[in-house]
Amino acid sequence: MKRKAIYPGSFDPITNGHLDVIERAAHLFDEVIVAVASNSNKKALFDIEERQHLAKKATAHVPNVTIDTFGGLLVDYVAKQHGQAIVRGLRAVSDFEFEFQLALMNRKLNESIETIFMMPKDRFTFLSSSIVKEIASLGGSIDGLVPEGVHCSLKEKYASRSEQSSE
Amino acid sequence: MKRKAIYPGSFDPITNGHLDVIERAAHLFDEVIVAVASNSNKKALFDIEERQHLAKKATAHVPNVTIDTFGGLLVDYVAKQHGQAIVRGLRAVSDFEFEFQLALMNRKLNESIETIFMMPKDRFTFLSSSIVKEIASLGGSIDGLVPEGVHCSLKEKYASRSEQSSE
Amino acid sequence: MKRKAIYPGSFDPITNGHLDVIERAAHLFDEVIVAVASNSNKKALFDIEERQHLAKKATAHVPNVTIDTFGGLLVDYVAKQHGQAIVRGLRAVSDFEFEFQLALMNRKLNESIETIFMMPKDRFTFLSSSIVKEIASLGGSIDGLVPEGVHCSLKEKYASRSEQSSE
Amino acid sequence: MKRKAIYPGSFDPITNGHLDVIERAAHLFDEVIVAVASNSNKKALFDIEERQHLAKKATAHVPNVTIDTFGGLLVDYVAKQHGQAIVRGLRAVSDFEFEFQLALMNRKLNESIETIFMMPKDRFTFLSSSIVKEIASLGGSIDGLVPEGVHCSLKEKYASRSEQSSE
Amino acid sequence: MKRKAIYPGSFDPITNGHLDVIERAAHLFDEVIVAVASNSNKKALFDIEERQHLAKKATAHVPNVTIDTFGGLLVDYVAKQHGQAIVRGLRAVSDFEFEFQLALMNRKLNESIETIFMMPKDRFTFLSSSIVKEIASLGGSIDGLVPEGVHCSLKEKYASRSEQSSE
Amino acid sequence: MKRKAIYPGSFDPITNGHLDVIERAAHLFDEVIVAVASNSNKKALFDIEERQHLAKKATAHVPNVTIDTFGGLLVDYVAKQHGQAIVRGLRAVSDFEFEFQLALMNRKLNESIETIFMMPKDRFTFLSSSIVKEIASLGGSIDGLVPEGVHCSLKEKYASRSEQSSE
Repeated sequence: MKRKAIYPGSFDPITNGHLDVIERAAHLFDEVIVAVASNSNKKALFDIEERQHLAKKATAHVPNVTIDTFGGLLVDYVAKQHGQAIVRGLRAVSDFEFEFQLALMNRKLNESIETIFMMPKDRFTFLSSSIVKEIASLGGSIDGLVPEGVHCSLKEKYASRSEQSSE
Repeated sequence: MKRKAIYPGSFDPITNGHLDVIERAAHLFDEVIVAVASNSNKKALFDIEERQHLAKKATAHVPNVTIDTFGGLLVDYVAKQHGQAIVRGLRAVSDFEFEFQLALMNRKLNESIETIFMMPKDRFTFLSSSIVKEIASLGGSIDGLVPEGVHCSLKEKYASRSEQSSE
Repeated sequence: MKRKAIYPGSFDPITNGHLDVIERAAHLFDEVIVAVASNSNKKALFDIEERQHLAKKATAHVPNVTIDTFGGLLVDYVAKQHGQAIVRGLRAVSDFEFEFQLALMNRKLNESIETIFMMPKDRFTFLSSSIVKEIASLGGSIDGLVPEGVHCSLKEKYASRSEQSSE
Repeated sequence: MKRKAIYPGSFDPITNGHLDVIERAAHLFDEVIVAVASNSNKKALFDIEERQHLAKKATAHVPNVTIDTFGGLLVDYVAKQHGQAIVRGLRAVSDFEFEFQLALMNRKLNESIETIFMMPKDRFTFLSSSIVKEIASLGGSIDGLVPEGVHCSLKEKYASRSEQSSE
Repeated sequence: MKRKAIYPGSFDPITNGHLDVIERAAHLFDEVIVAVASNSNKKALFDIEERQHLAKKATAHVPNVTIDTFGGLLVDYVAKQHGQAIVRGLRAVSDFEFEFQLALMNRKLNESIETIFMMPKDRFTFLSSSIVKEIASLGGSIDGLVPEGVHCSLKEKYASRSEQSSE
Repeated sequence: MKRKAIYPGSFDPITNGHLDVIERAAHLFDEVIVAVASNSNKKALFDIEERQHLAKKATAHVPNVTIDTFGGLLVDYVAKQHGQAIVRGLRAVSDFEFEFQLALMNRKLNESIETIFMMPKDRFTFLSSSIVKEIASLGGSIDGLVPEGVHCSLKEKYASRSEQSSE
């Protein structure tokens, strides 16, 4: 049997913390689908195509990883993809509680799908897409925090923004 | 002396987790007032009359429970009702801290009113009004998560919404 | 119906934090039984009679409080006493998790008994029987941390101990 | 490639919470080894052979699960077994922190071995070997908390103990 | 060497909890700069000049404290001021995690700047600018929660608001 | 005024996590006293002289650090040394709560002494004296976890132990 895991998220944008979890998951499963959520309530910095594109470039070196987008209920998407597991990264206690509630809800919605939690490298403990965007927007260095492609895209994004706002 | 407890909240909408806490509180107190907050900052899905109505239907089988609405400071409302206690449900550590800060503040505002914490059934650990609304809005099943009346109202709400957005 | 609550613990010895919870519970229930556990695994400083005696003296001013001891399962004791609720004090997140597991277990053993959580005064947040014993054993001041009777008993205990060890 | 996971623990004794995690892991991996730790500091109720035997009986219905014992460093054992992952169950925040420290240490000792966390059924949130032993020792009902074989062994254990202590 | 610490925040408005931390920091460092953040995303009740002014009045009695404002990255500001440390108050577990992530990020951005955490008085555990604003907006008493100057400013703010809304 | 901080602990033995906190504290204070506790209840692997000696060797390169031992109440020791602050390292939420209770107690015992919390490097998050001893006792590598001197002492300790046990 081929084991397939889904790694869902906003990926706005993908960080080295996400990438670390993806690479670890790719060692444990035959196939890993990184599923970029389209129906997020949160206003995204990058649109869904950009987010998918950045994730694709960042994971190009991992053969058993594919990037996809999804809307609607996560468990319905996982079932359609014949996935056995949802992968989530855990960094801190606050993550833990939120993720547990999500996992319990998903189990209630579809008992046959398992959620497993993985731990990114300890030096990525503080890392999140929001914190990366905040640093970048303030002109701080995001070296080592995001894949190279994301680095450039973030710079462009905030450069064009400050041009607009200074016009 | 008659013991009266107030169970405050947004109840947008009431869930089976709320109902479980209400039924437990109704065993310990002579009277329980479910107090629907009108001055919440959060934008509600259901307006205050709908929320009160749904709570009323869901608790019709518990004789010593009444539903009311309140604005202003909770402790002032409790004092006006001659309540001895505020009842709050606790599900998780994050609840706990927030609830503790709230309870400490309420004690500072009125020392004679006690806050007590009760624990819903473990299968309601993940349940919240927000998560129910999210599942319903994505077309997922909310069977067993909300009282029957809420079930229908949520369906109508999201059906009319998708009609509007597809017009 | 008379409402009766059981407040169980080791009370080795009773502290002002315990007393604060007892007084609050005594406002909400017609009768509160402070139930000193005899079958604790932990090696106690005070034997069961001393602990019961100290609790009795400390609560003499609260008319609807009685002190008792119990062995065996807590829920069996509560049922025998026709109690409706178990009262537990919550001070911190670590308390919370332990207490939740206990409460869930007790609910499993006897569904008709409810556990409610109450919050001691914020200045008792750090207070526990162990910390009181540690301070007392090192000769620190425990003023304001324990009832007067406990104060003397702790002094005697550690005085006789240091005599023994210096013989 | 065959995926092999190790599920280590004291299993003193195995509970339905453990069993639940084992069955879930058995869906995700080709082979799951339940590894009973022999060098635990904690004084065990059951000796290593009994613990292994009880785990074997409880998992007899899951074809891709084997029971083994290990001493020394866990990561060395996992490497010797050519396992890719260590599986751990997470129930609560306190688990989470302890497990995270353990997982970070194990990653430091051997970077190629991944730790994944799984979540038992919500009704097993409060369940642990210690709590089961405490209930059993006090004569409470452990129905639904442990596999049938463990049920009998616990009864015998505590029956023989009370005989000894009453002689 | 003179030791200089920066205490950054929104201070919208400064509370007695902030003031308590400032006074404690002023005992440990030769100079403490209270740095009011201008680029916060959160919509503030008081504008940056008001927030600075209120903080200045509240700290007038502490000689080695100055009030400043800053934009951009905090670590850049601290470096420009030749500060050795960032001071943060910790009240609860949820604070702790957020603050830890922030501190780790700041250390990544500038390794030579240390973050230290201090603990306000226990009776300020529940206190935050948001909770003060909520109480004030509902007409509750904020005695003992904020410095005198803030007390008046909050009253004016909400008085003028209710006039506007009732027009 | 010279600023003096006390860093108390068991240091059984000192780890690189402790050392990291000591070096950080030494940047913020004129003098740091590492105070090895002699009256710990916990059975120590190294006796008080060994623990002091290992700490001395490990901190020889930091000029403003001295090593001392203390018994009795920590706050009394700090007062006798004319220290302004107690320094504690924080790694995780469980640390946080325990440390907070300790700090609140110490503040109660002596209000003029401040406790400050510092954060070790993220790669030391999982590190503790106990975990180091456990790894060493099982023959695992403790490279990078302890200062060089401790490395040798731990090896000797466990070598002599296994000789004894195999005689």
